[in-house]
Amino acid sequence: MATATEKAGILIEALPYIRTFYGKTFVIKYGGHAMLDPQLRKAVLLDIVLLRYIGVRPVVVHGGGTEISEMLRRIGKEPTFVQGLRVTDAETMEIVQMVLVGKINHELVAQINAQGAKAVGLSGKDGNLFVAEKYTAGGVDLGFVGEIKAVHPELVVNLTDQGYIPVIAPVAVGPDGESYNINADTAAGELAAALGAEKLIMLTDVEGIMLDPKDPATLLSTLAVEQAYALIGEGRIDGGMIPKVEACVKALRQGVARTHIIDGRQLHSLLLEIFTDRGTGTMIVA
Amino acid sequence: MATATEKAGILIEALPYIRTFYGKTFVIKYGGHAMLDPQLRKAVLLDIVLLRYIGVRPVVVHGGGTEISEMLRRIGKEPTFVQGLRVTDAETMEIVQMVLVGKINHELVAQINAQGAKAVGLSGKDGNLFVAEKYTAGGVDLGFVGEIKAVHPELVVNLTDQGYIPVIAPVAVGPDGESYNINADTAAGELAAALGAEKLIMLTDVEGIMLDPKDPATLLSTLAVEQAYALIGEGRIDGGMIPKVEACVKALRQGVARTHIIDGRQLHSLLLEIFTDRGTGTMIVA
Amino acid sequence: MATATEKAGILIEALPYIRTFYGKTFVIKYGGHAMLDPQLRKAVLLDIVLLRYIGVRPVVVHGGGTEISEMLRRIGKEPTFVQGLRVTDAETMEIVQMVLVGKINHELVAQINAQGAKAVGLSGKDGNLFVAEKYTAGGVDLGFVGEIKAVHPELVVNLTDQGYIPVIAPVAVGPDGESYNINADTAAGELAAALGAEKLIMLTDVEGIMLDPKDPATLLSTLAVEQAYALIGEGRIDGGMIPKVEACVKALRQGVARTHIIDGRQLHSLLLEIFTDRGTGTMIVA
Amino acid sequence: MATATEKAGILIEALPYIRTFYGKTFVIKYGGHAMLDPQLRKAVLLDIVLLRYIGVRPVVVHGGGTEISEMLRRIGKEPTFVQGLRVTDAETMEIVQMVLVGKINHELVAQINAQGAKAVGLSGKDGNLFVAEKYTAGGVDLGFVGEIKAVHPELVVNLTDQGYIPVIAPVAVGPDGESYNINADTAAGELAAALGAEKLIMLTDVEGIMLDPKDPATLLSTLAVEQAYALIGEGRIDGGMIPKVEACVKALRQGVARTHIIDGRQLHSLLLEIFTDRGTGTMIVA
Amino acid sequence: MATATEKAGILIEALPYIRTFYGKTFVIKYGGHAMLDPQLRKAVLLDIVLLRYIGVRPVVVHGGGTEISEMLRRIGKEPTFVQGLRVTDAETMEIVQMVLVGKINHELVAQINAQGAKAVGLSGKDGNLFVAEKYTAGGVDLGFVGEIKAVHPELVVNLTDQGYIPVIAPVAVGPDGESYNINADTAAGELAAALGAEKLIMLTDVEGIMLDPKDPATLLSTLAVEQAYALIGEGRIDGGMIPKVEACVKALRQGVARTHIIDGRQLHSLLLEIFTDRGTGTMIVA
Amino acid sequence: MATATEKAGILIEALPYIRTFYGKTFVIKYGGHAMLDPQLRKAVLLDIVLLRYIGVRPVVVHGGGTEISEMLRRIGKEPTFVQGLRVTDAETMEIVQMVLVGKINHELVAQINAQGAKAVGLSGKDGNLFVAEKYTAGGVDLGFVGEIKAVHPELVVNLTDQGYIPVIAPVAVGPDGESYNINADTAAGELAAALGAEKLIMLTDVEGIMLDPKDPATLLSTLAVEQAYALIGEGRIDGGMIPKVEACVKALRQGVARTHIIDGRQLHSLLLEIFTDRGTGTMIVA
Repeated sequence: MATATEKAGILIEALPYIRTFYGKTFVIKYGGHAMLDPQLRKAVLLDIVLLRYIGVRPVVVHGGGTEISEMLRRIGKEPTFVQGLRVTDAETMEIVQMVLVGKINHELVAQINAQGAKAVGLSGKDGNLFVAEKYTAGGVDLGFVGEIKAVHPELVVNLTDQGYIPVIAPVAVGPDGESYNINADTAAGELAAALGAEKLIMLTDVEGIMLDPKDPATLLSTLAVEQAYALIGEGRIDGGMIPKVEACVKALRQGVARTHIIDGRQLHSLLLEIFTDRGTGTMIVA
Repeated sequence: MATATEKAGILIEALPYIRTFYGKTFVIKYGGHAMLDPQLRKAVLLDIVLLRYIGVRPVVVHGGGTEISEMLRRIGKEPTFVQGLRVTDAETMEIVQMVLVGKINHELVAQINAQGAKAVGLSGKDGNLFVAEKYTAGGVDLGFVGEIKAVHPELVVNLTDQGYIPVIAPVAVGPDGESYNINADTAAGELAAALGAEKLIMLTDVEGIMLDPKDPATLLSTLAVEQAYALIGEGRIDGGMIPKVEACVKALRQGVARTHIIDGRQLHSLLLEIFTDRGTGTMIVA
Repeated sequence: MATATEKAGILIEALPYIRTFYGKTFVIKYGGHAMLDPQLRKAVLLDIVLLRYIGVRPVVVHGGGTEISEMLRRIGKEPTFVQGLRVTDAETMEIVQMVLVGKINHELVAQINAQGAKAVGLSGKDGNLFVAEKYTAGGVDLGFVGEIKAVHPELVVNLTDQGYIPVIAPVAVGPDGESYNINADTAAGELAAALGAEKLIMLTDVEGIMLDPKDPATLLSTLAVEQAYALIGEGRIDGGMIPKVEACVKALRQGVARTHIIDGRQLHSLLLEIFTDRGTGTMIVA
Repeated sequence: MATATEKAGILIEALPYIRTFYGKTFVIKYGGHAMLDPQLRKAVLLDIVLLRYIGVRPVVVHGGGTEISEMLRRIGKEPTFVQGLRVTDAETMEIVQMVLVGKINHELVAQINAQGAKAVGLSGKDGNLFVAEKYTAGGVDLGFVGEIKAVHPELVVNLTDQGYIPVIAPVAVGPDGESYNINADTAAGELAAALGAEKLIMLTDVEGIMLDPKDPATLLSTLAVEQAYALIGEGRIDGGMIPKVEACVKALRQGVARTHIIDGRQLHSLLLEIFTDRGTGTMIVA
Repeated sequence: MATATEKAGILIEALPYIRTFYGKTFVIKYGGHAMLDPQLRKAVLLDIVLLRYIGVRPVVVHGGGTEISEMLRRIGKEPTFVQGLRVTDAETMEIVQMVLVGKINHELVAQINAQGAKAVGLSGKDGNLFVAEKYTAGGVDLGFVGEIKAVHPELVVNLTDQGYIPVIAPVAVGPDGESYNINADTAAGELAAALGAEKLIMLTDVEGIMLDPKDPATLLSTLAVEQAYALIGEGRIDGGMIPKVEACVKALRQGVARTHIIDGRQLHSLLLEIFTDRGTGTMIVA
Repeated sequence: MATATEKAGILIEALPYIRTFYGKTFVIKYGGHAMLDPQLRKAVLLDIVLLRYIGVRPVVVHGGGTEISEMLRRIGKEPTFVQGLRVTDAETMEIVQMVLVGKINHELVAQINAQGAKAVGLSGKDGNLFVAEKYTAGGVDLGFVGEIKAVHPELVVNLTDQGYIPVIAPVAVGPDGESYNINADTAAGELAAALGAEKLIMLTDVEGIMLDPKDPATLLSTLAVEQAYALIGEGRIDGGMIPKVEACVKALRQGVARTHIIDGRQLHSLLLEIFTDRGTGTMIVA
């Protein structure tokens, strides 16, 4: 166990990072094990509260696929996916919203507040934060799956200015006020761009991007945008990692300074990424 | 149909009320038929948007009992009530939250935004708006039914200052971050008091308070607090009307200027109450 | 007479216009019958107060030719005009000021205030609002008739920011502090341009611009700038209408969005223009 | 003539006074010879502009009896007075307004602006600055002679906050929007009290208050309130001086720090009062 | 050495303290070994910079007796003390100022700035921060030794509001603009009171207050004000510790929440006091 | 001696200059006899306080060569100069700082405050105001003599915004936090440029720039930049005047409106330059 002096030393070692990130906005995509496992979850939320207290402006965008599928099954409906995207009929969309907004978002807000910070839960409908249209790219009708067409970040800016931590569910509003299910990775990336964030950090269930996904020794600590495209072309980045990498690339192109894909399964990986020289996971840079 | 000149005349007739209520806060308890019937719902939301545009600061607290019971049945659970209060075990509480926050609140926000105003959905957990403890008064364990112990209205004040319409689901946070189901009438009353509101308006499914509930001719257009207690004592006010009257009385005692129980089943009853000399329903005064 | 529900409906029908014009500045040139007839006058001032309450920033520029001529006769001086412009010797200028600033402006302010709004009377001398030079274009010495050379709208902006309704008499200040009589139509147009107003509305004693001034059926509801010039060339627009049309054209060129020539003799024509789809009179557009 | 070094010395000698009065409000009652004589007038207005530039907030309330009587005669009406108060029928009131607001006030504004300051002309009707009722004390019907019942100084405060010099005509508004002629001395005193002014300075046509009005050697440089009453009782202060003394006493009682009655016939008496140890005229103190 | 995860854990453990002290003002009396030893000095300044970055408002008051005596000897003048107070003739005072303000204060500012914070050096003369009179209590003429008579903390408040760290030399200004040497402990205490500081922390060359100064085992971790007086009466607190204890007591009486006497010889004792439950040294409480 | 009326007249004559310079920043390089002679010194500081009170924002940069040399001799060290620049070893630098910051600056602040203004003493280290590197141009190692590389004027702007008079010692901070002795003329010029000052005024020990330094009749009241270079080329401007002229030229090129070299030996030359048509000394213009 660290001695008192070691403790002081560690606080002092964090100083250069605290200085650098003071007043900056970090958009954190939160999901996977880090959200489902209670101990990891508590650690992530503490990390976020700490960030707020030392002057960073964290903004959280969360997912919730597992809980949505669970709830669908509870009302006797089997979840269906086409090309990795959830087929979202009207009844499914109703459940998506209830789980994302009424359960997950709501619980996250309460848990952050219990740590002494001030969180406010939002969806993309509040203040028209995320405006979407029906997603039509795949040629298949997926129902209420949307593509973001516009981001109105004023409400988020107002709330962070006043010291709140916005916690955002990935639901968007359509042209007629209808709801759309949107990808949380994409939403986090678009929001980071609209806010001119300093960092976009994706908490995932892998250690980062690896040349050989089975061999942790091939973890890439830094990845340039061109390399990322090459790896996608070669099929070395695939599945759920593709939208994450694309969200990072898009955010970088719109002015976000740094994007990170880190391992949410590691305790306090968020703080470690921010407060150590080595960082964790993979940083994608322009 | 009104001629152009009659139209102008009616706008001009509203002027004294517009002048009087400029910059004032109105807390509107929204529920019942006015929420379930699509045409009535659209009219109420338009009324609220108009209020915002002419300088009033409307704050909406909504209910949702009917939809909660429906959803409970969908997952195969029969709703139970003791003394008019919902027995709320952990599973029920989860559904309460999902329906109130993730469905009703969420849809109201989208519909108000579609009219060109800026709504933001909140629950009592956002910014610790409503802090509650377990309700123990009845001697029966009702589970997660809470009593409000503290109101922190700063977030609501911030949002109305910036032109937003806060729409609030009646869920409160407990001492350990747990959720409580709270009575929406009581929540509206407590919030009106904490905000120093000008008016508390309850939309109900009756015409107002009647000496003989079967005879509309006995409608009381004004009711003093003492009278209200007398009527409750005589059993002429009973059932779901009691918490509404009590919320009004409590709000009056804490400085709210005027409280109203109006008929939500009448189209635009909200505007009529505000912009006509005669008003509608029953006004309870100190 | 409209029923309560019709009343509510009419208020709601005004909502889209209220939304559109919220926070916008309207410069209203006020004169003619609408100022001389007590009933019309009361209606116009009420319309202006209503505009202020629903979030528009009205700025009034008034005329006063009739009253000036009356007062001149009272002190035994016959008014003289050359090419429609008042010959303004020093004594006439003194009377012009006293009538415009000390009588008309002053009474308008009191009447607006009596409706619960806050008006402030100004002339072009206050805060150097209108700076003019002697008008020399016509080749005749008209005395203290001025042409506007500069507009300093800061005072008007300050007052509208604080919720006041500025009411402005068309008197300008010259290079040596002397007073100039300026055309109220021109003054309104210049001020609208300097304020970046949304609308310039001229209240006149005709229904609008008509191809045949004797045939109301030839009223033009919309008129493009080029057309306006053509009509002037053809002599179909003449007399006192020319400076009004020119003021509109100049304002349009300097960024005012819409300009209107409406019939001040019709009760509440101002509200009707603003709150109905059909509008009234003639709209001149760029 | 002063050498350059003497000039610098005089500026430096003014420093302690500049320091003391920085940011303070002075209400200056302006009238008499100081207003009628062009050279004196120019000097007073320069003094006021200088005060504004060195950080004082001057507020000017002016009279205008001589010009009113002149104008009345021009329209063939003989001025009448009862107990020193002008009998003010409706026609007279119209002339009072035109002369005070449309001529004197207007010219003062232009002349101050010509010195590079920013003046704004007001009457008691602007922003309901002075609200009056019919004066009934004397038992004689004087017509539109009013007594001040309320002062709303917000507009004056706003304008001085923004660097303007308000110039105010002593006309008040009555309960029905009608105009009242009010005593300028009284108006200045009431305004000084409402503004919490540092000084109320009355420019008069005498040297100050003298024990023997015919003997300048009996000038009182300081006068306590009790003494003032004694002198009035003994008839040593009489005529037009009584309302001036009463205005000073009332202002002192309501918190104005110092009140002065000075000789407006002396060039720059205003600056001398403020910037010399000896001062000029009579200071009345609590 | 701590692992990455331990590091994260230690940061998280500091969170409750960060939360509690966010936005609070700490006045730190800095002197003794912690100032003379380069390694300790660097650690203290880093601690102060860290405090600023995590939201605390540190204000530093420093001493400098050793360097003053050194400099006096360099110009060939032997330092003299009476009852522990420096005899301060005019020449000594000149040296006191030059060393405190021109050397120590100046170097501290540069070293803090080199860590990325923004320090501003002040003495009690800047903005009349400390106003003093000649100290006469002892019956001996000590020359320019002063007692603080007034504190004007506005400049310090302004600078901390804008994110600066004020570093203050204990020199005060006298009634005629002359300089006084004041006790740094007293100055820190008076300033803490004037600022309504949360904490006053004295860095000393002992471990804290001990019942037996030779036995560290008798260290008192908490000491009530009455006990402190008793210990002084018994002679167990003496010498240079008396003004420190008196400064703490006086600060407590004027509303400072907590005062601490800690061991400046221990590396990072400042952070340890603030961020650990056990704290260090002696806390004096009301 | 001036009569009261002459006094008023002189104040009034200053008005156009007060108007012109209201809110403008003047950087005043203060040194030479005007600093050493007590009577001149008092006059200069009074002039500066007066400027602040009438709305100018004076910023003072002072020198101190004479006192530094004196102090060096007191500790037994002979001052050495190479090409007019002080050879500044570490010990000398320590004395430079102590004298400039701890003595001269400190005394100036106290004397200004004693006149009722609010001065704050700064060095180039406070808020990193002047950042320098070692001066290497001459080919000789002069030790801690620095060249300004960057100016961070935020702190000075903040302080003048709040009504303070910043008094600045010409010491800069180097890349490693070390101190550098910088030329006060150059520092004043760079600061004037960074502040966008209206005027840069150099107080010197000559009457201005003269074609023949021995003949006051050859004083140039205005000098264009090209002329200045020609005169330097011809050797007519030499010695300590060269850095002053160069500082003026550089400031002019970076947007300072006017620069002046005036005679600090003349009582109140600062006020005379500012408040008389003729001015004093030499004005260098772009």
